[in-house]
Amino acid sequence: MKILIINSGSSSIKYQLMVMPANEVICSGMIDRIGLESSNVTFKSASNSLAETLPIQNHKVGLQKVAQMLLDAEKGVIRSTSEIGAVGHRVVHGGSSFTDTVKIDEKVKAKIKQLFDLAPLHNPANLEGINVAEEIFDNAAQVAVFDTAFHQTMPEVAYKFAIPNKLLTENRIRVYGFHGTSHKYVSEQAIEFLREKNLPTQNIITIHLGNGCSITAIKNGKSIDHSFGFGPTNGLIMGTRAGDVDQSVIFYMQNSLGFSLEEINTILQKESGMLGLTGFSDLRDIEAEAEKGNKDCQLALFMNAYRIKKFIGSYTAALNGLDAIVFTAGIGENSSHIRKLVCTDMDFFGIDLDLEQNEIRSKENRAINTPDSKVKILVIPTDEEFEIANQVYHLLRD
Amino acid sequence: MKILIINSGSSSIKYQLMVMPANEVICSGMIDRIGLESSNVTFKSASNSLAETLPIQNHKVGLQKVAQMLLDAEKGVIRSTSEIGAVGHRVVHGGSSFTDTVKIDEKVKAKIKQLFDLAPLHNPANLEGINVAEEIFDNAAQVAVFDTAFHQTMPEVAYKFAIPNKLLTENRIRVYGFHGTSHKYVSEQAIEFLREKNLPTQNIITIHLGNGCSITAIKNGKSIDHSFGFGPTNGLIMGTRAGDVDQSVIFYMQNSLGFSLEEINTILQKESGMLGLTGFSDLRDIEAEAEKGNKDCQLALFMNAYRIKKFIGSYTAALNGLDAIVFTAGIGENSSHIRKLVCTDMDFFGIDLDLEQNEIRSKENRAINTPDSKVKILVIPTDEEFEIANQVYHLLRD
Repeated sequence: MKILIINSGSSSIKYQLMVMPANEVICSGMIDRIGLESSNVTFKSASNSLAETLPIQNHKVGLQKVAQMLLDAEKGVIRSTSEIGAVGHRVVHGGSSFTDTVKIDEKVKAKIKQLFDLAPLHNPANLEGINVAEEIFDNAAQVAVFDTAFHQTMPEVAYKFAIPNKLLTENRIRVYGFHGTSHKYVSEQAIEFLREKNLPTQNIITIHLGNGCSITAIKNGKSIDHSFGFGPTNGLIMGTRAGDVDQSVIFYMQNSLGFSLEEINTILQKESGMLGLTGFSDLRDIEAEAEKGNKDCQLALFMNAYRIKKFIGSYTAALNGLDAIVFTAGIGENSSHIRKLVCTDMDFFGIDLDLEQNEIRSKENRAINTPDSKVKILVIPTDEEFEIANQVYHLLRD
Repeated sequence: MKILIINSGSSSIKYQLMVMPANEVICSGMIDRIGLESSNVTFKSASNSLAETLPIQNHKVGLQKVAQMLLDAEKGVIRSTSEIGAVGHRVVHGGSSFTDTVKIDEKVKAKIKQLFDLAPLHNPANLEGINVAEEIFDNAAQVAVFDTAFHQTMPEVAYKFAIPNKLLTENRIRVYGFHGTSHKYVSEQAIEFLREKNLPTQNIITIHLGNGCSITAIKNGKSIDHSFGFGPTNGLIMGTRAGDVDQSVIFYMQNSLGFSLEEINTILQKESGMLGLTGFSDLRDIEAEAEKGNKDCQLALFMNAYRIKKFIGSYTAALNGLDAIVFTAGIGENSSHIRKLVCTDMDFFGIDLDLEQNEIRSKENRAINTPDSKVKILVIPTDEEFEIANQVYHLLRD
């Protein structure tokens, strides 16, 4: 079955066409800056690649452009939209209603809409993508894969805040968790990897370090706690996001420093994190600067790793055990420096990094712990598109 | 030396007169509701006790009343204010300037004033208490003991937030930590207790559970991380305070639910925590209700303990080891139920509670772990007044 994966952001569309269950990528690409004067449009298949700049007024025009590239007589990959059996939509917020991947119908769309105010930047774009895809790929099953779904196994003790109960019951304020597709994928890969070696798989911590960063405690394959909460803001230090910050800082910034709440939000989301600490948001720049002796960059890397270490400790307590930690996503897969900082002085936990294995670059699932390390340290490249396609395929086949 | 300990709150004064180094309490008492129509005034010595209700207009009148009771010909304990060698003032916020107890002079008072906006409820009252005490006890040395001082050994990696650097350098936004006098006292007591038994003392976590709740990671006797941050709001779940809560909750409550920031602050400080979860703020009521089958109360107790467990894990990672955990303050000293919930399913950490020892009520320092428990579980009654008096005594003697 050919499955088209669509990830609609507020001003972008990423897409990938796959054959499942073969896990073969036919083509992929993206459109950014939707609604602005000119968009970058890319398309890449085994035999062709394309990059052009043209105005894309809205998501409908964007998806029409995607369809046109897929169907192109010369460079395209399909002859008719009817060849596409399913469209898998990444939807950011599924609230507590969606605990799994679902076929989209009017009820599902209504629920996605009810969640607009919980994810005002993402869910409207996701729904727009769904509506347009229904028109263009009208023979295909439309399926929603939620970023929050994997975390809906969290127990109350982990998902509730200690705030008045009616803020949960009436206003839906609770921990939802995000990056679920990635944490699900890498934890399943990790469990398979460990099982093949007859190693225990009960207690796993997955550490997703990309543009956004989050960490999940996984018990017997299920998410039981997670560092993102009500929104994708808290927890680990990110490129431009502060992660955990004291609530009293927000009140002080308004009351004593005179910032508006909108300004504070912008500072915490776009001017904080590694950028706020160093002036750089790309970890590769920060590592290079630290290497040259930049003290701010050195400290920021230590802070970043220290925060991760504390979450590992915290989640080991939540799990009452630790069999493996898993690094994934851009930074997790590629920064041997961050991995080393995280795994240093963690021998109480039985974490012992093999420094040579840690330096080897690879796109394979791999262990980078010493043979004696009680806790296995894995690097598992994430593949959210595959995970989405796989979930769509299994939903429709079963 | 007779030392008068004064703890001035925004509308209260607590006092205690002690003889040091004998650690003898001559008398103690408090005045509340200062500035309201009528205040409750108490005084208690070995031979007399007094409780009356009268109007106390301000802190000056309050301290004059204290002096009058101390000097009372019939029930008093001193003949002249000159018998008092020193007045020890609890000052809540010492910023990063004060890393230890200091003799108060004009420079110290100016610095306490500079910190008013960081502790608007407490530092003005503390300074007022100092000014009045200087007039009334004019022969006594005036000494300030800061709630933040013990935590000033925290490394940058622990006290910095991942926010733009200038918010620290220009606006002093960082983790300060509070409850320092209590954490210092119980950690020193714990170290002595362990040393006498030739047990390791390097890595200790002190858990202060009272009206406010906080937890400190202590390496070789020094605070290296702490759950209260910029203000005494974050971290553990408290009677009416939420503790850790997602920053995005605050933005959502304003943007989507229409609360003002002041209302949100009030909700998070006064209507959240155990009260918000259960309708009760006193832990004894909550435990009794839970016993009767109240599900909200049962869950709130689990959430409370779960949060503490995660901090124990987190700080064990920060310390890379754990020799002892220490319970203190009203709840920590008296709630065997909370201690049991915290110590359940923590065997990965080597925490093994002796259920019988846990149930014994005592005012002594004691261990409540099983003989085989790798981590020692201590209950150490806190004594902030003694700690303040002791610090004052040693400062003046040395």
